[in-house]
Amino acid sequence: MTHNPKAAMPAWLETEPEQNSFRSIFKWGAKNSFKHPSPGFYAVIKQALDLSDTQVPPLVNIGEKRVEDTQKTRIASEDIHLFEEIVGLDNLSFDTYSRLKYSTGRSMEDILNLRQQKIDNICDLVLHPRSKADIRKIVSLCHIKKIPLHVYGGGSSVTLGLACPKGGVTLVMGTHMNRLLHFNEINQTITVEAGMMGPVYEELLNHAPEKLNAEKRYTGGHFPQSFEYSSVGGWVVTLGSGQASSYFGDACDLVISQEYITPTGEFKTHAFPATATGPKLNDIMKGSEGCFGVLIAVTMKIFQYHPETSREFTFMFHDFETAITAARRISQAEFGMPSILRLSDPEETDIAMKMYGLEDSFLDRFMKFKGLKPGSRCLLMGQTDGKKSFSTHLFNQIKKLGKKSQGLYLTGYPMKKWRKGRFSDPYMRDALNDAGILIDTLEAAVTWDHLKELYTAVRGYIKQHPNTICMTHASHFYAQGTNLYFIFITKLCDVDEFRSFQRGIIEKIQENFGSLSHHHGVGKMMAPFMENHLGKTQMAVLRAIKNHFDPHHIMNPGGLGI
Amino acid sequence: MTHNPKAAMPAWLETEPEQNSFRSIFKWGAKNSFKHPSPGFYAVIKQALDLSDTQVPPLVNIGEKRVEDTQKTRIASEDIHLFEEIVGLDNLSFDTYSRLKYSTGRSMEDILNLRQQKIDNICDLVLHPRSKADIRKIVSLCHIKKIPLHVYGGGSSVTLGLACPKGGVTLVMGTHMNRLLHFNEINQTITVEAGMMGPVYEELLNHAPEKLNAEKRYTGGHFPQSFEYSSVGGWVVTLGSGQASSYFGDACDLVISQEYITPTGEFKTHAFPATATGPKLNDIMKGSEGCFGVLIAVTMKIFQYHPETSREFTFMFHDFETAITAARRISQAEFGMPSILRLSDPEETDIAMKMYGLEDSFLDRFMKFKGLKPGSRCLLMGQTDGKKSFSTHLFNQIKKLGKKSQGLYLTGYPMKKWRKGRFSDPYMRDALNDAGILIDTLEAAVTWDHLKELYTAVRGYIKQHPNTICMTHASHFYAQGTNLYFIFITKLCDVDEFRSFQRGIIEKIQENFGSLSHHHGVGKMMAPFMENHLGKTQMAVLRAIKNHFDPHHIMNPGGLGI
Repeated sequence: MTHNPKAAMPAWLETEPEQNSFRSIFKWGAKNSFKHPSPGFYAVIKQALDLSDTQVPPLVNIGEKRVEDTQKTRIASEDIHLFEEIVGLDNLSFDTYSRLKYSTGRSMEDILNLRQQKIDNICDLVLHPRSKADIRKIVSLCHIKKIPLHVYGGGSSVTLGLACPKGGVTLVMGTHMNRLLHFNEINQTITVEAGMMGPVYEELLNHAPEKLNAEKRYTGGHFPQSFEYSSVGGWVVTLGSGQASSYFGDACDLVISQEYITPTGEFKTHAFPATATGPKLNDIMKGSEGCFGVLIAVTMKIFQYHPETSREFTFMFHDFETAITAARRISQAEFGMPSILRLSDPEETDIAMKMYGLEDSFLDRFMKFKGLKPGSRCLLMGQTDGKKSFSTHLFNQIKKLGKKSQGLYLTGYPMKKWRKGRFSDPYMRDALNDAGILIDTLEAAVTWDHLKELYTAVRGYIKQHPNTICMTHASHFYAQGTNLYFIFITKLCDVDEFRSFQRGIIEKIQENFGSLSHHHGVGKMMAPFMENHLGKTQMAVLRAIKNHFDPHHIMNPGGLGI
Repeated sequence: MTHNPKAAMPAWLETEPEQNSFRSIFKWGAKNSFKHPSPGFYAVIKQALDLSDTQVPPLVNIGEKRVEDTQKTRIASEDIHLFEEIVGLDNLSFDTYSRLKYSTGRSMEDILNLRQQKIDNICDLVLHPRSKADIRKIVSLCHIKKIPLHVYGGGSSVTLGLACPKGGVTLVMGTHMNRLLHFNEINQTITVEAGMMGPVYEELLNHAPEKLNAEKRYTGGHFPQSFEYSSVGGWVVTLGSGQASSYFGDACDLVISQEYITPTGEFKTHAFPATATGPKLNDIMKGSEGCFGVLIAVTMKIFQYHPETSREFTFMFHDFETAITAARRISQAEFGMPSILRLSDPEETDIAMKMYGLEDSFLDRFMKFKGLKPGSRCLLMGQTDGKKSFSTHLFNQIKKLGKKSQGLYLTGYPMKKWRKGRFSDPYMRDALNDAGILIDTLEAAVTWDHLKELYTAVRGYIKQHPNTICMTHASHFYAQGTNLYFIFITKLCDVDEFRSFQRGIIEKIQENFGSLSHHHGVGKMMAPFMENHLGKTQMAVLRAIKNHFDPHHIMNPGGLGI
């Protein structure tokens, strides 16, 4: 089969969305930033999805329409007046557009709904609190009046985390609650309000000498793919992981103190580096997704920043099994952990080879000569960080162990290529969706002993769907296991059809020893699966804590499945 | 002042305690193992405590008396019969000796009481459950009958963790609930019943090829000073830390799954290496000290065992401040963490120099020549572990950084000396107590920025007590801070006088930004301080969880202060 990719490429829409349009809500990232598949990648999609080689796919459901102000708020006007007294008129809105905007994240279901101009599960009132005092009053008012209360951080939830099935109020934290509260260089911690956005946080730390009067430069070490549109508080309440988590830790490892306002009280946990004074509130609150109270501020660990010490590596392995074994050996070797480690299955590897422009290169021919064949071979790449000599030592050890584990060392080039696009890939989703092509992801944590089972079952299910790409990688590593991240691409734009396909994948994950989520969180998407996943007895504990903090069940109703 | 230490040494009691005597309960460790202060160390004590240089201190309250069966059980005989039906006659006792034995740990208050033949806060019935099924029935029966229920692991609590202020039942886990359940080499995890003792656990892992049919040897990486008489379950429910925690992690980092039977339900948490499905039950249960339910089994992370890679190092610094700065730099350097790191204050350093036989040695004279003077100089020692090249690299980095931070490198000799005695020091406590000399410890976690304040205030308080030695060290290190461990030695044997002195120290810890405990746990000793330490709102959360699991408040009443 031959391809003439350019001829059949859709006319990618690369104009700023109209103000107040549906598109302006669901479009990822900056208004004027776009990314579409490279011709090579599009050719892969075209072939796999069996798209016409000559007809350009028309753009569908691009959401260009304005969101009309059709939804009457369900909050009584005297109550709205009370909220206005708290935050002021400037920090309050209840027009349909604002309410829709702050009730939707970046879940595929959110996006498909918006593309079809469906308005559902939105809040009734949007508030931009200015201070802890504002939030204290809002929580108290919502508690007394039994008005549901939700928190909007960076808006990048991919698990329907922001949906408001019972309406109510949504607090937007990024507008004002985004300040630096305290920087403590001797303890290597920083305390910020929960609404501070990822890039602002990282920028502050990287420029600590100039901005914080510090001696050294620092990094937060937390880089989820949603980095640009994620908030520090969001990382903590959804248990996020950054792409460099294997060295720096997941969000749950990074946060050492949290401050909350709940319907039944407020508190700030101690910031001790460790303590043996019973079950830790700091742990109990992590991952609570706004169901217990509003996270006001967090104290996070920070790390010395030396980007110049990063060393990139890439290996090619004969097959998935061999690559997994190598990754496991690295994770269990006790020579330190690389910050990034990323293992692609054969399908993702083949696509990556095309995307990185390596297909049919000299290197590719050399690999084939060595028996590393498309359809079977697997890419393992990563990066070491930390103090210079540590990073170098670790790099050398990994190189040695990778080779010993039958990997062909391919230099750091593919890793550098990947790193370049790592925050911009979400932009591509909009372009594909415009062309009626669905691209979505699901992920799970798994122990080493069940990895193959989980992979086979979930991939098998996805591939049963006709003409579907399924790229899988593992990207967060621990001595005890890793995660599997499934990316599926298929021709699909109906939301119900999508839901049923997606729910099927989730069931397969559950049935095959996967966690419901490694780092995407629960939201309202995973909520219905939680009881089955954790069991009734464990869910009852979460509900007991919920009842304690929030006896009227106003905090993010439907969240966590509790 | 000259000393003639040998002449005035007490006649150390080194005979096995009489069977069923008070002494047989409180004596540390193996019946026929003893340790008394070296002449050098005793000379230090004698001088500091202003003991007579000629008169041998008489032995006092050695607890040689038999525990008579004077305490009638308060559990009705028909109920005892029900318990007998569960565990069988062989696994049940209610004589005073057994009840006293399993209701006392190794807190100084426990010991002083036993030495004075005080019997207080003991349980009414001792059970040795044989299985999970036994425990299920016992918990259910206690719940229905509202009989208090306690769990005895290794018996090494130093916080009155085993006291039964309301009587009731004590479960001894070490007798039968000590089995290996599952060894998973690919995941590097092991699942054992909660009552398995530390040495059995470590032995099993070290000999994994022979005993578990494994490919490699492993270590649990957890070595508290109480190692010999601690249980794996105890590590988890009291949030213990081993001496090598700076590399391997604290108990809370090592446990990835727990199985509990509580009055209102039983469950086993998932053993995923990470997961983002809301607040984690595994976290909520850590440190619950038997107040929520009975820990049946735990799944722990294990590590590859290569003791041959350990590298020891020691430095001497001019003063405490300089030494702290060096230790902080090491902890924040991002070249990996040493497993052991141990910083002694000037008083501990001076005593260590004597104990290690270094005083007046050539090395000592060299140090003095270099300006490193007794009364000011501070010892920082440690050990690196992990894969060989990692350990060597880290060792070299630490050596470099230590020197750069003005430390004088003293080889690994003092570290090796310390390591030799590290599990036997508790034996010395009994010998000193026999001579009417109190030796006890309190410890706290603290962030770097408050370390000096905490040290000064607590040490100041202890030293106000006339003729008192106060040795302080930090021994568990994190990028954000460390712990302070205060050892005090004074002439004291009255329990009330001791309590009032000790309570004063705890208050000083609290007032000066220390946590109530870094790794000793809460027990009934810290319980009264918990509400003030955590605040009412946070305590209310722990109480809500308690109420959920244990509505009749039968589980370890008085524990955690909830």
